[in-house]
Order: sequence, then structure tokens, then C-alpha cells
Amino acid sequence: MSKVRIGICGWGNLGKSTATEIVNFPDFELVAIFTRRNPGDLEIGLDVPVIHMDSILDWKNKIDVMMLCGGSKKDLPKQAPELAKHFNTVDSYDTHTEISDFLKAVDSSAKLGNNISVISTGWDPGIFSILKLYMGEIVPTGKTYSFWGPGLSQGHTNAIKQIEGVENAVQYTIPIESAMDLVRSTKNPDLAAKEKHERICYVVAKEPEQERIAEEIKQIPLYFADYDTVVNFVSNEELEKNHSKLMHGGNVIHTGKTGNNNKQVVEFSLKLDSNPEFTASVLLAYARATYKLSQKGQTGARTVFDIPPILLTNSPTEEIIRNLL
Amino acid sequence: MSKVRIGICGWGNLGKSTATEIVNFPDFELVAIFTRRNPGDLEIGLDVPVIHMDSILDWKNKIDVMMLCGGSKKDLPKQAPELAKHFNTVDSYDTHTEISDFLKAVDSSAKLGNNISVISTGWDPGIFSILKLYMGEIVPTGKTYSFWGPGLSQGHTNAIKQIEGVENAVQYTIPIESAMDLVRSTKNPDLAAKEKHERICYVVAKEPEQERIAEEIKQIPLYFADYDTVVNFVSNEELEKNHSKLMHGGNVIHTGKTGNNNKQVVEFSLKLDSNPEFTASVLLAYARATYKLSQKGQTGARTVFDIPPILLTNSPTEEIIRNLL
Repeated sequence: MSKVRIGICGWGNLGKSTATEIVNFPDFELVAIFTRRNPGDLEIGLDVPVIHMDSILDWKNKIDVMMLCGGSKKDLPKQAPELAKHFNTVDSYDTHTEISDFLKAVDSSAKLGNNISVISTGWDPGIFSILKLYMGEIVPTGKTYSFWGPGLSQGHTNAIKQIEGVENAVQYTIPIESAMDLVRSTKNPDLAAKEKHERICYVVAKEPEQERIAEEIKQIPLYFADYDTVVNFVSNEELEKNHSKLMHGGNVIHTGKTGNNNKQVVEFSLKLDSNPEFTASVLLAYARATYKLSQKGQTGARTVFDIPPILLTNSPTEEIIRNLL
Repeated sequence: MSKVRIGICGWGNLGKSTATEIVNFPDFELVAIFTRRNPGDLEIGLDVPVIHMDSILDWKNKIDVMMLCGGSKKDLPKQAPELAKHFNTVDSYDTHTEISDFLKAVDSSAKLGNNISVISTGWDPGIFSILKLYMGEIVPTGKTYSFWGPGLSQGHTNAIKQIEGVENAVQYTIPIESAMDLVRSTKNPDLAAKEKHERICYVVAKEPEQERIAEEIKQIPLYFADYDTVVNFVSNEELEKNHSKLMHGGNVIHTGKTGNNNKQVVEFSLKLDSNPEFTASVLLAYARATYKLSQKGQTGARTVFDIPPILLTNSPTEEIIRNLL
């Protein structure tokens, strides 16, 4: 049987991780990597052609699913609607407040091109979203809480790096264990941002600047101002040695009551040594669903809520029923 | 808008719980309860007609989804294929090894009657099965472990009650915490049955019989012989006071590695004060999916793997996307 032909568009953490994780998807074959950089400059370490983005449409009929591995801020809002006209796509668009508009834009494009797209996959949005839906519908009297971390937050890290004098930085989001326990106890607490998470920063900067930088970090609105933030200054060597793993994770906890005051507690957790590799794996599983839907002639954009779990597998349904049901 | 008309077939723990939990599903209306007993003998405490099973077909066009709340051993294998000819159905059939045959039987009947059935819902099979599918497909290099409890196991309790001299009994399945921690540490251990769970029994029996009864319990094949089993004898008063809650739960833990030895740990857990009320809630959420599929003209039998998460909700898709994605 011929394999599903996969393209990777974007060669950052997510694109690289997609290229490494695809080996675990034996029905897939990586056929090309697309980049805005000079293809000759990329050392990908794989026997796969690297193509400049300007030539991506030459690959229109040679790729079954295009993995959109660009960022949500600058790349995907433009790229996804454009490419959905020409390819089946999967992306990890994660600007939560803009997802509805993004969905509409991708949906129109995909329909124009008779393609299918699955948007906003990954773990949050993605797997966390699905779990929140299941939990909320099954115990409708309850309340759902999300905690993130312990993990390295790319967005917060980048915010620190914008500050003058910062040479390098890493930010960890740490969930507050006592808050999680309070939630698990079914007390349905109202928790302010700083009661759920704290923020620990490791920053490389010269001594005379450190006090000012620490203050500036703590005052960044939304990112740090509403939290208890700890700023540690370290050497670049220490940062690279101890803080280069892209670990992350989180917990979704739902508690509610049924019948005569019976407590029901549902919890889902991820502890990930590699956030991009896990995210890439989710995207690949949804690429399988995307391909299957395209084979059925479906077009337009879908979210993870629309995808029956069975579409994620390459195993025969009878086997899945025998082993998992 | 008219409500979805729900029937409950079977008035045991699950049927009763379905009747109490339906209040949390505002789009549903309970229209009748069906029983094999004398309807006049049932004190249901609700303003809903109780009908003898012999007259169930009189309700053929008055019920949108029939909740099959009978047992998997004696009731469902016969009832589900019969009733699927006349009603859309949802059941909690949980004899894992027989599910494939059950699916085929219900599928043929449902197609004959132009109805749709969702089989084997609940939490295991059901929600646990879905989680195992997601975890296994997203981290295909990994291994999935299921732990059950702490919880009251109906099957094991019944096995004890069969023993001569036993007046009453309750059996708790207890997951072994150190085994769960070993799994979470990504060591992929091979665990024998007795290394994952222990069994604690509370039994009411007369003094001279106790030693023999304890021995007999410990020797019951499959149920107890392969486990560390503790048997405690208690008075009937103590049993009813301290051991009448139908609590249960469990954990599904999946660990695997991606990339260069990066550990990924995914865990789902349920801690349920009331097993039947949670199970009933799952069935009701899937009744919603069943109804929606029937409105689309779909027929035949489905498993939880076939059902897109979005079908479980009564909320507008835009709202779900805005709040959960």
C-alpha cells in the first residue's frame, strides 16, 4: 500500500519535531520540507528535499497532507487560508480568542480548493479542549479548571527576551499544587491568576542591569504583573546546561456533583519532556484523520471536536474494538 | 423546542441513576420507565408512567432514545438486538470479550428498523476506551496501563454472595499505589494481576463458618485466586453503615518516549462517589449523540470511537469553540 505523503511547512521546533516523530507513523512518508529561508542553509539531517516556500505550489499534487508548523502570531493567520486552497492541512493555531475567525477563513479556502483542514490541534488547544468537552457534558453540574506546567512557556520567555539588556532567558510556568488539591477536593474555588500559577524566570544579564531588568519583567502586563514572579540571574552556560529542555504539561480537572451530593472528580494530565514532540505527534495523528476525511471527499475546515476518535488510528476497527473497548 | 423523549428500560442501579441525572440534560424529557416486574410494585418517586416490558412496543413512536439499563450478563445480549429493531438505543454492554459479536447483532437489528444504537458506553468500556485510543495513537511508542479503584466491584461482590453461609458482602478493588508510580516513572514494567490491584472484602457471616468462607473466597479462580485478598468479617449494621456507597474509579496511564529519549506521560483518572450516576451521565451524553445521528438519518450500531465529541453537547458549536478550544 502506498503511504500518505506528508509535507512540513516551517522548520522551527514544531517542524523539526514533526520530522522526527513521523517514524512512529508507519503509514506516513515525509516527502518535502518547505521553508522561507534559503533551503541550502538548512541542515536537516534527513534524506528529504528542502524547498523554498515560493515553490510550494509545484508540490500541489504530490502531497496528501501539509503540516503547517509555523507560528500562530505571524505565520498561520495568512499561511493557513492560503495553503488550504491547495493542500489538505493540519495546524496548531493557538491564539484562543481568534480561533473562530481563523476557522471561517480556513473553511472558505479549503472548500474553494476541495480540500480539508483540521485546525488548532496539539494539546492546548487540542487534547485539553476535547477533555474539557467530554468532562463538561458528562458532569454538566461541574466546573472545569486548567492548570499549566511545570513547563517552559515560549511566549513568556520571548516577552523577557524583548527587554533591553537581556542576553538570554527561560520562563517556567509552575502550577500551584495546593490550588490543584483545593480543586480536587470539589470545593469549586474561585481562583485568581496568581493563585493558580507562579512564574519562575532564569535570565542572563550583566550585573548592573539586573535590578532594573527584574523590575521590568515583574511589571509586564498580562504576562507577569498578575502573578508571583521570581527572577533568577544565571550564566549563559548554566542556562544552556539546565534549562534547554522544552518540557511542559498541565492538568485539566473537572469536579461536579450528581444525585444526592455525590462527588465526581475527573482529571487529565500531561507531563511532557518535550512539548514540541508531543504537539507534533498530535498533529500527525490528526493528519491521519485529515487524510481519511479527504478520501471520503469531505471538504472545509474542522476542529478536533468534529473528529471521531476512530479516525486517528491506522489499525483495523475490529482490532481497536477488541483491544480497547 | 420539543424535548428529546427518553425511555428507561430496566430499573436497577443504572436505570434509577439515569432517572435522577436526566435533570442535568435540559434538552431531554423522561417519558416512560419499562420493567419486567409488576409496574405497580415500583416506587419510583417520579411523575412518569411505569410500563411492563410486554407493552414496550406500544411506545415505538413515542420515544426518541431508549436507554438500555439492564445487565450485561442476562439482559442486554437479548434485549439490545431486539429493541434496536424498534428504537434508537444506548447501552452499557461491558462483557469486553463479546463486544464485537454484540456490535454485529445490534448493527443488523438497528439497520432493519432504520434505527441507530450506540453500544458499550459508560466509563469502562466507554470513556477509558476513548482515552486509551487517543493516548496510543498520539504516543505510539508507548504502553497503556489501566488501574481500577479504589472502588466497589459489583461482579466480585456477587461472586462472594454466591458462597454458602454468606449473608451479605462488599468487595473493594484497590489499585496498588507503588505500581502506579512505577508506571508513571516510564519504566514500562510488566505487572502481574496481583501487582496492580488488591482485593478487600467485607463479609457478613456467622462465626463458625468464617474460616471456611474466607478460604473459599480466596480460591475463587479469576476473581480472587490471582490476587492478594483480605477478608474482613463485619456485622450487617456495619456493612450497611460504612459500605453502601457505590464508589469507584480508576486511572489510565500511558507512557512512551519521543525523539531523543524524551519521556511523555499521559494520565486520566476518575474518582467517583457514585459509579452508577456517572455511568448514567455518560449514557445520557451519548443519547444526545444518538439522537443527533438519527436526525441525520443514520442507522446501524456505533461505538464511542465513532462519535465526534461535538455530538455530545447541546450547546452551539460556536460557543463550544469560543469557550473550550
